[in-house]
Amino acid sequence: MGRVLTLEESRRRQGTSLDAISDLVAPGMQRVNELILARAGSDVALIPEVATHLISSGGKRIRPMLTIAAADMCGYRGEGHVRLAASVEFMHTATLLHDDVVDESEMRRGKSAARVLWGNSASVLVGDFLLGQAFRMMVEVGSLEALDILSRAAAIIAEGEVMQLTAAKNLATTEDEYLAVIRAKTASLFSAAVEVGPVIAGASKAERAAFRSYGVNLGLAFQLIDDALDYGGNPDRLGKDLGGDLREGKITLPLLLAYRRGPDADRAFWERAVEGRGDREEDFAHALHLMRAQRAIEDTVERARHFGAVARDALAPLHDSAHKTALLEVIDFCIARST
Amino acid sequence: MGRVLTLEESRRRQGTSLDAISDLVAPGMQRVNELILARAGSDVALIPEVATHLISSGGKRIRPMLTIAAADMCGYRGEGHVRLAASVEFMHTATLLHDDVVDESEMRRGKSAARVLWGNSASVLVGDFLLGQAFRMMVEVGSLEALDILSRAAAIIAEGEVMQLTAAKNLATTEDEYLAVIRAKTASLFSAAVEVGPVIAGASKAERAAFRSYGVNLGLAFQLIDDALDYGGNPDRLGKDLGGDLREGKITLPLLLAYRRGPDADRAFWERAVEGRGDREEDFAHALHLMRAQRAIEDTVERARHFGAVARDALAPLHDSAHKTALLEVIDFCIARST
Repeated sequence: MGRVLTLEESRRRQGTSLDAISDLVAPGMQRVNELILARAGSDVALIPEVATHLISSGGKRIRPMLTIAAADMCGYRGEGHVRLAASVEFMHTATLLHDDVVDESEMRRGKSAARVLWGNSASVLVGDFLLGQAFRMMVEVGSLEALDILSRAAAIIAEGEVMQLTAAKNLATTEDEYLAVIRAKTASLFSAAVEVGPVIAGASKAERAAFRSYGVNLGLAFQLIDDALDYGGNPDRLGKDLGGDLREGKITLPLLLAYRRGPDADRAFWERAVEGRGDREEDFAHALHLMRAQRAIEDTVERARHFGAVARDALAPLHDSAHKTALLEVIDFCIARST
Repeated sequence: MGRVLTLEESRRRQGTSLDAISDLVAPGMQRVNELILARAGSDVALIPEVATHLISSGGKRIRPMLTIAAADMCGYRGEGHVRLAASVEFMHTATLLHDDVVDESEMRRGKSAARVLWGNSASVLVGDFLLGQAFRMMVEVGSLEALDILSRAAAIIAEGEVMQLTAAKNLATTEDEYLAVIRAKTASLFSAAVEVGPVIAGASKAERAAFRSYGVNLGLAFQLIDDALDYGGNPDRLGKDLGGDLREGKITLPLLLAYRRGPDADRAFWERAVEGRGDREEDFAHALHLMRAQRAIEDTVERARHFGAVARDALAPLHDSAHKTALLEVIDFCIARST
C-alpha cells in the first residue's frame, strides 16, 4: 500500500507471479496454514515429523490458494473453505509421499525425500494418515457436494497414478493417453480444489462449471510445464535434479514428441534410455539434444499455453474482479515457470 | 430348513462358526459382494487385477457382515448399509495392500501377496484407489455421522500402523502400548463397521454406544488371537507361514509376555531374534519353546477372552434376537480360531 515497488517486484507483479492471489487470500491462507500444522499433529511423534518435513519445505500451496480465492470470489462468508483448502493440500501431500515411494525419488523440493530419511513404510503410512485427516476435515465442513467432488478426485488421482505406472517405459503411449494420465493424476485435484469453493458458496451450476473447467485446464498446463521443466528447467529453482523422469522411465510429453517426431534411427536410443540400460548422464545429454532437434520442449510448452488459454476463456463469463484477475495471473505464472 | 445337519455342521453351529451371522446377512452380503466387485472395477486394467486378487482370495468379510447385521438388528430398511459395508471392506483391503508393502510380506490368504506379483508401487496405488472408492460410496449414502465415524477410523488406523512401525523391534514396549497399537490399527475399524449400521438406522445414543463397545472389544480379541496364531496356528488354515511377526521384528503380545516373564538370560536371544540376526528357523523354534515355558500364547488367548467377555456384556442391554445371538457367536468364533 503506497510503497514504492522495486524493479524486481514490479516485474513480478506483471502477471508472472503468484503475488496477486497470495495477497488476496493471505488472511484465509494464514488460517489454512495453522490448520495444516494442527491437523498434521499426532501423539505418534513420527507422524508430524514426516508430515511437516514435506509440509514446511516451501511448496507453493497453489491448490489451497485456489480454493480460498474461488470461495471468496463467489462471496462465501463462512470458515468451511479453510478446512476444504487444508484438505486439498493434505490430499496433495499424501500423493507426493506415495509418489516418491513409487518413483523411488531421492529429492523433493530441494530436500531429501521423506522416504530417504524415514523409509518407504513411514511415507506410505503417513500419507494414509494425511488422507484420513483430509477426509475428516471435509466431513466437518458438512457439504455432501464438496465431499462428493473431493472423494471422486481421490479415486481418480490414484487411477491416474496407476495408469502412469502401466504406461511406464511404454514408448507407444499416444499423446491422448498421456493427457488422460495427467488429467487424472494432476488436473482432477486442481479442478476439485477450485470447484469446492463455489460449491460451499452456493454458486450457480454455470459458475461451478466455469471454475471446474478453469481448474482442469490450469492443472493440465501446470503438469505439462512441470514435465518440460524436468528436461529444461533450472535445478536450483526446481529443488530437484533434472532428468528424473527419464531416469525413472517415465513417459512424458517432451519425450513422446521427440520420440514420435524423430527418425527410426533414434528409436533404439530412446528404448535403451527409458529402460535405463545406458549411462544415465550421457543418455540425458543425448535426450536433450534430440529434444532440441525436434523442438519437443518448446512444443510441450505450446501445448501448455493451449490449455492455459482454455482456462482463461473458462473464466470469461464471470464478472471482473480482483479475484478473477488474480486467477488469470495464476495461469500466466504456471506457464512462465518454464521461461 | 428342516434339513438334517451333519455332525460337522452341528459342531460348527454350536457357536464357533460364522454360520449364524452368514445366514442372517446373506441377502445383504450378496449385494455387498456385487458392489465390491463393481467398485473395484476401472478402465485401468491393473486396478481390478490387483484388487480382485486380494478381494477374491477368500477373506471372511467379517467387518461388512457386522455392518449389515448391526443395521438389520436396528430395523434399518434402506440400502445404505450395503454401501457402507462395501466401504468398510475396501478400507480393510487398502490397509492390507499397504501393510504388505510395509511388512515386506510374501504371502496373504494363502496366495502370493499382491506386492510380490505386481510390485510395491501397484500395491500402494491400488490401495489408494480403493480408499478413494470407499469414501465415494460413503458419500453416496449421505450420512455425515457415518462419514465422521469412518473418516476418523481411517486416520486412526494409519496412526496405529505408524505406532507399530515406531515400536518395531522395541522390546521395551509395554502391554498397554501394544494395546494402544491394536486398538488403533484393528479395533477402530471393527468399531466403526459395527457403529455405522445403528447410525444410519437412527438408533439411540445408548444403542450406538453398545455396538461401538462391542466392536472395539471384538476387534481387540480378534487381533490378539491373530497374534497368537502367528506362533501357534495351523499354517494351512491361516494361509500364511507361521512366525511372520518374529521375522519382521514385530512386537506382539505373545512375544512381549515371553520376554517380560523370562529370565535375563533369555533377553539376548530375543534381541537377536527381533533384529533378525540369527538363523530364522532356529530362532522361531526357540521362541516357541520359550513362549511355551512362559505360557505366553495361552495367556494371549486369555487376554483375548477377556475382551471377548467385555464385547459380550456390551450387547447385554439390547433386546434378544437372532441377530444378537449371531453377533455373540462372532465373538466365540474369533476366539475359537485359536483352538
